[in-house]
Amino acid sequence: MGNTFGKLFRVATFGESHGGAVGAVIDGCPPRLAIAREEIQLELDRRRPGQSSITTPRDETDQVHILSGIFEGRTLGTPIALLVHNQDQRPEAYDHLKEVYRPSHADFTYDKKYGIRDHRGGGRSSARETVGRVAAGAVARKLLAQLHQIEIVAWVRRIHDLEAILDPAAVQREQVEAQIVRCPDPDVAARMVERIHQLKEQGDSVGGVIEAVARRLPVGLGEPVFDRLEADLAKALLSLPAVKGFEVGSGFAGTYLTGSQHNDPFYLQDGNVRTRSNHSGGVQGGISNGEDLHLKVAFKPTATIARAQETVDRQGQPTELAVKGRHDPCVLPRAVPIVEAMMALVLADHLLRWRAQCG
Amino acid sequence: MGNTFGKLFRVATFGESHGGAVGAVIDGCPPRLAIAREEIQLELDRRRPGQSSITTPRDETDQVHILSGIFEGRTLGTPIALLVHNQDQRPEAYDHLKEVYRPSHADFTYDKKYGIRDHRGGGRSSARETVGRVAAGAVARKLLAQLHQIEIVAWVRRIHDLEAILDPAAVQREQVEAQIVRCPDPDVAARMVERIHQLKEQGDSVGGVIEAVARRLPVGLGEPVFDRLEADLAKALLSLPAVKGFEVGSGFAGTYLTGSQHNDPFYLQDGNVRTRSNHSGGVQGGISNGEDLHLKVAFKPTATIARAQETVDRQGQPTELAVKGRHDPCVLPRAVPIVEAMMALVLADHLLRWRAQCG
Amino acid sequence: MGNTFGKLFRVATFGESHGGAVGAVIDGCPPRLAIAREEIQLELDRRRPGQSSITTPRDETDQVHILSGIFEGRTLGTPIALLVHNQDQRPEAYDHLKEVYRPSHADFTYDKKYGIRDHRGGGRSSARETVGRVAAGAVARKLLAQLHQIEIVAWVRRIHDLEAILDPAAVQREQVEAQIVRCPDPDVAARMVERIHQLKEQGDSVGGVIEAVARRLPVGLGEPVFDRLEADLAKALLSLPAVKGFEVGSGFAGTYLTGSQHNDPFYLQDGNVRTRSNHSGGVQGGISNGEDLHLKVAFKPTATIARAQETVDRQGQPTELAVKGRHDPCVLPRAVPIVEAMMALVLADHLLRWRAQCG
Amino acid sequence: MGNTFGKLFRVATFGESHGGAVGAVIDGCPPRLAIAREEIQLELDRRRPGQSSITTPRDETDQVHILSGIFEGRTLGTPIALLVHNQDQRPEAYDHLKEVYRPSHADFTYDKKYGIRDHRGGGRSSARETVGRVAAGAVARKLLAQLHQIEIVAWVRRIHDLEAILDPAAVQREQVEAQIVRCPDPDVAARMVERIHQLKEQGDSVGGVIEAVARRLPVGLGEPVFDRLEADLAKALLSLPAVKGFEVGSGFAGTYLTGSQHNDPFYLQDGNVRTRSNHSGGVQGGISNGEDLHLKVAFKPTATIARAQETVDRQGQPTELAVKGRHDPCVLPRAVPIVEAMMALVLADHLLRWRAQCG
Repeated sequence: MGNTFGKLFRVATFGESHGGAVGAVIDGCPPRLAIAREEIQLELDRRRPGQSSITTPRDETDQVHILSGIFEGRTLGTPIALLVHNQDQRPEAYDHLKEVYRPSHADFTYDKKYGIRDHRGGGRSSARETVGRVAAGAVARKLLAQLHQIEIVAWVRRIHDLEAILDPAAVQREQVEAQIVRCPDPDVAARMVERIHQLKEQGDSVGGVIEAVARRLPVGLGEPVFDRLEADLAKALLSLPAVKGFEVGSGFAGTYLTGSQHNDPFYLQDGNVRTRSNHSGGVQGGISNGEDLHLKVAFKPTATIARAQETVDRQGQPTELAVKGRHDPCVLPRAVPIVEAMMALVLADHLLRWRAQCG
Repeated sequence: MGNTFGKLFRVATFGESHGGAVGAVIDGCPPRLAIAREEIQLELDRRRPGQSSITTPRDETDQVHILSGIFEGRTLGTPIALLVHNQDQRPEAYDHLKEVYRPSHADFTYDKKYGIRDHRGGGRSSARETVGRVAAGAVARKLLAQLHQIEIVAWVRRIHDLEAILDPAAVQREQVEAQIVRCPDPDVAARMVERIHQLKEQGDSVGGVIEAVARRLPVGLGEPVFDRLEADLAKALLSLPAVKGFEVGSGFAGTYLTGSQHNDPFYLQDGNVRTRSNHSGGVQGGISNGEDLHLKVAFKPTATIARAQETVDRQGQPTELAVKGRHDPCVLPRAVPIVEAMMALVLADHLLRWRAQCG
Repeated sequence: MGNTFGKLFRVATFGESHGGAVGAVIDGCPPRLAIAREEIQLELDRRRPGQSSITTPRDETDQVHILSGIFEGRTLGTPIALLVHNQDQRPEAYDHLKEVYRPSHADFTYDKKYGIRDHRGGGRSSARETVGRVAAGAVARKLLAQLHQIEIVAWVRRIHDLEAILDPAAVQREQVEAQIVRCPDPDVAARMVERIHQLKEQGDSVGGVIEAVARRLPVGLGEPVFDRLEADLAKALLSLPAVKGFEVGSGFAGTYLTGSQHNDPFYLQDGNVRTRSNHSGGVQGGISNGEDLHLKVAFKPTATIARAQETVDRQGQPTELAVKGRHDPCVLPRAVPIVEAMMALVLADHLLRWRAQCG
Repeated sequence: MGNTFGKLFRVATFGESHGGAVGAVIDGCPPRLAIAREEIQLELDRRRPGQSSITTPRDETDQVHILSGIFEGRTLGTPIALLVHNQDQRPEAYDHLKEVYRPSHADFTYDKKYGIRDHRGGGRSSARETVGRVAAGAVARKLLAQLHQIEIVAWVRRIHDLEAILDPAAVQREQVEAQIVRCPDPDVAARMVERIHQLKEQGDSVGGVIEAVARRLPVGLGEPVFDRLEADLAKALLSLPAVKGFEVGSGFAGTYLTGSQHNDPFYLQDGNVRTRSNHSGGVQGGISNGEDLHLKVAFKPTATIARAQETVDRQGQPTELAVKGRHDPCVLPRAVPIVEAMMALVLADHLLRWRAQCG
């Protein structure tokens, strides 16, 4: 059941890494939105392997096919099925992983839960499943843009201990895309790339933090008490492979402040109620307050490393494993569009929910 | 719609702070679980106001009534309705808040979203709504204990900058309950109490971090890809008032490690596959791996403070506010049972989901 | 899980016949609807036992309590909890049913499914659970009336073989309520009352057909392909105790026509597209077409009868049963408001769904 | 949202009649079920056009592709994506329908609801969408067969006024498949075929009734109060194109009986509690009682007819329409596998729900 996301803008994704295809079906998209195949493809291109020297060299062009729900360039209000065929399949490359559990991967838990698993490239647990998320997210972005001019921008804030501290309100997508590591600060970005190359050469990997904002949200998105906007965002982002932490607004750092320091004073600006600071991160009482939505996501270092590691096999025998595959030494550059896609799915869903109850 | 939680062990909560009652309806609880009213009451007592010198002096005994679903001490498999009447109602005490927006509260967002709000004590946005969560969580805990001996323990790890670093595997509920601040380290606990009193006297407030574990989880809970166990936990915990951050396992700190440092090597122990470290926090690929589930939650400082603050009123006029009410200068001690309740709801739901698909 | 209904206008009901209370929680109701307690009570009064000579003599006044979600006469957009305490409890009156399975009742299936049951008055399987539906339905009706002037009228069309064939477009609620049997044709109604008395004296019971319309529906309600308007109505009505059949528009009778006889020709009337006939029953392709929604529901004869019947007990021993309780010899008169309530719940839900996707 | 069905065995279907493809994604299927592509294809072959002289001559072989979720002949527990490419596309054949509303079709309601529609072959409102249902249903059938040896058989009981009254317990699938009209009584079947040919020649169409049973259901499927087994079946079947009525057990005919005639007496047979009659249709209190599940479904005559009909166009101008397309003069023969598929989806879902709560 866990492959369906959203209540009204509902997405079901499918696909194993080395099966026939990966993709998504969107159920509940409003009709008459203009959307071109190229707009979906653009987001997939940002996610695709082989895009730079710091990503996996696997060459997958990941061309999307629209099977339904879009007619003459506009959504029909019917299900939108999006498909990407799997290419570059070298299943035999994975034979050595058939019987061994890669540490901090899902091999063991999938095997124990389901009693069966597609070992080729991680099967369903491969980050390749995020193709469906990104494709569906591209449609959600169009909805957000066309209905409310909402804009979502994510970027790499930190790799290992290399951090770019920027004004979230000022970061532009062009600055992010100008760097292969997707950190908009060119100096820090250069050092990040160097660090990634360094660790890759050592057969190791590295993680970090992605930061993101959504701008021009209307006041009123979010459904207290359980479906608070930040709660659904937290779920969306913790559902991504390798994510171990989430913060909205002041996050953990805010716990070092007192209430008088942390509270965001209200004031009037051009007739609108605004807050002087944004420790709340754009959400109060679970509902968007019109300020920029602001969040951070922690990605652990890639679990797949070339170094030898202690592990066990399916028969429960101790063994050693050194993965010789092609993998990303750092997932964050390619995770930026995925984070944006998940945010778009949450916001699109809540926009429709808001229309339903309060529209 | 946002007042319903869970797919199979489904809870709907209801109630405003100063309406007739708060409570919950559980739909989907398995039949024949033994449960006494006192077991639900016990959890509500841990949450109730007025329990110590560091909580609000409001005196609400919060007696729970079981209206349905339990017959002769056992669950029927039908909906369990749990009700707590609101007492100590002094609605006139809130008249001064009818027209003004408290900073970093939900007054403004509720007003804009719904066009109407019950201003008395925050209405639905009051933390009093968590009564329903705790009552339902008490039933979920019984289910977890009776079906799999699963145990959940949460405690206060940090208040402001006062931190207790403990071995999560060793913390016992009795140690937690022995301290009014619910930090199991007596020395740190004493300093925390002092700090809370200090800030209260200054008309200020403080936040911190709650840490928690769930023990004896079977391997296999969690539904990739969207309903990963950690994703549903993140949602559950970010849905709590005042929560701004969530970490599972190594969390944000883990992003400073490399893959070779972070990966949890597998080994055999008494025929079971175990991991030598637990940076994963008990979850791999979104599925429990049999190690302790381990998480942390950041609570911002209480928004209600006695100090004067800049704000605006409903008519959009600038004004100043100093709240003279009875409130908690620090929510964490009373939040411990609430965190446990949310964890129990998530785990109970996933236990049933696991039985459905793989049972 | 089966005690929750609707996707956006979501209702959870609870309560056993002889437990503490029965009721409902509505999650997702739009804010700012005007509603008075008396309006809910009015619908419960139409459902309550003891209202006439042809219903059970049990005297339950069924006073509704609003616990949350309504403030100063208007909905808050938060959950609306509605409660009716159980009265007239004579649990000992049911001791003889503790060990025996009443034919065509739910005693056997509940016992087998749950391994436990509240035998007093049928527990959750009692038609008393419909109190929650009717209370929630009263709120749904207000929503439909305030947003679109939608009106729902149901009536008894047939009891046993006594049938009133009326123009559905012409039936008014006042005519229905003028007859204790709720058949708007006074002559047929008189014969129906006589028949019910007759069968009651014989220790027997009787069923029949309820017919209903919803007027002034906007074009566009219903979500193809699975959540067609008629599909959700069918589910809603088949979920009522004793219902064995459902028809929309021409129903089974329409299968005796050819396509050229059955199709509803389109024409223009005052600028609106209308149909000359209404074999479709107001729904085409699963979506309301602006004509009256028209349906029929078959209720089997009451299973509880005074006559001796062959059955078995919990230990699987053959036995004989003659129920000496107080029960309705015919459920249809009291089922009229229940049918209307279920229709209102479906239409309210679809109205919000329509706003979400197409609003 | 309406394109998703089921709570645990959850199916999302997609596809317009003349878009790229139609298909389904199943989320929640248990792992390790054996299933071959041919088993899915078999059911699609029973549904496909052009299979006999009484169906549309459109030649669509409807070959199914399994894109995910099945590995080496067994289900993985991950989403199963099933795809059928659209062939025989002659979109220009539909140009004359672009601007005109076919009576008793969905053209008008789709246009008004969505403000856009794919007019080619009815788009999403085409019965071609049932390809996804049948493909998913084939997987559900395997689950039912492998877990509980449950068998589903449907057949044509009546076409127009030609009726075959058979013992539902005795009908075998082979007898059904032996007749192109799928009525297992050869004599009545012959007359039905003749009638269909006759009406087709007259440019007209015809409907009728499909009857069905499910055998070897365990006691306990169905979730009172709203998700009764018969309620979910009613929804499933009313969600099919052209369905106007549903009966379980005695249906409308049962309303002519008294309670003493209608009640099903319990008795013991080989240690099992059985009922002497089956007016209940295998369901009591919304829960399966171990007897054969028995239902009937009314299909209206095909709306597409060659005769001239009164209608209006998109601009609201009166016009006349005579459809010269290739269509089924009677949908029932091809609807038999579709009815079975919907029953299978409901039963598979409830089987998993039963495991979750009571397993």
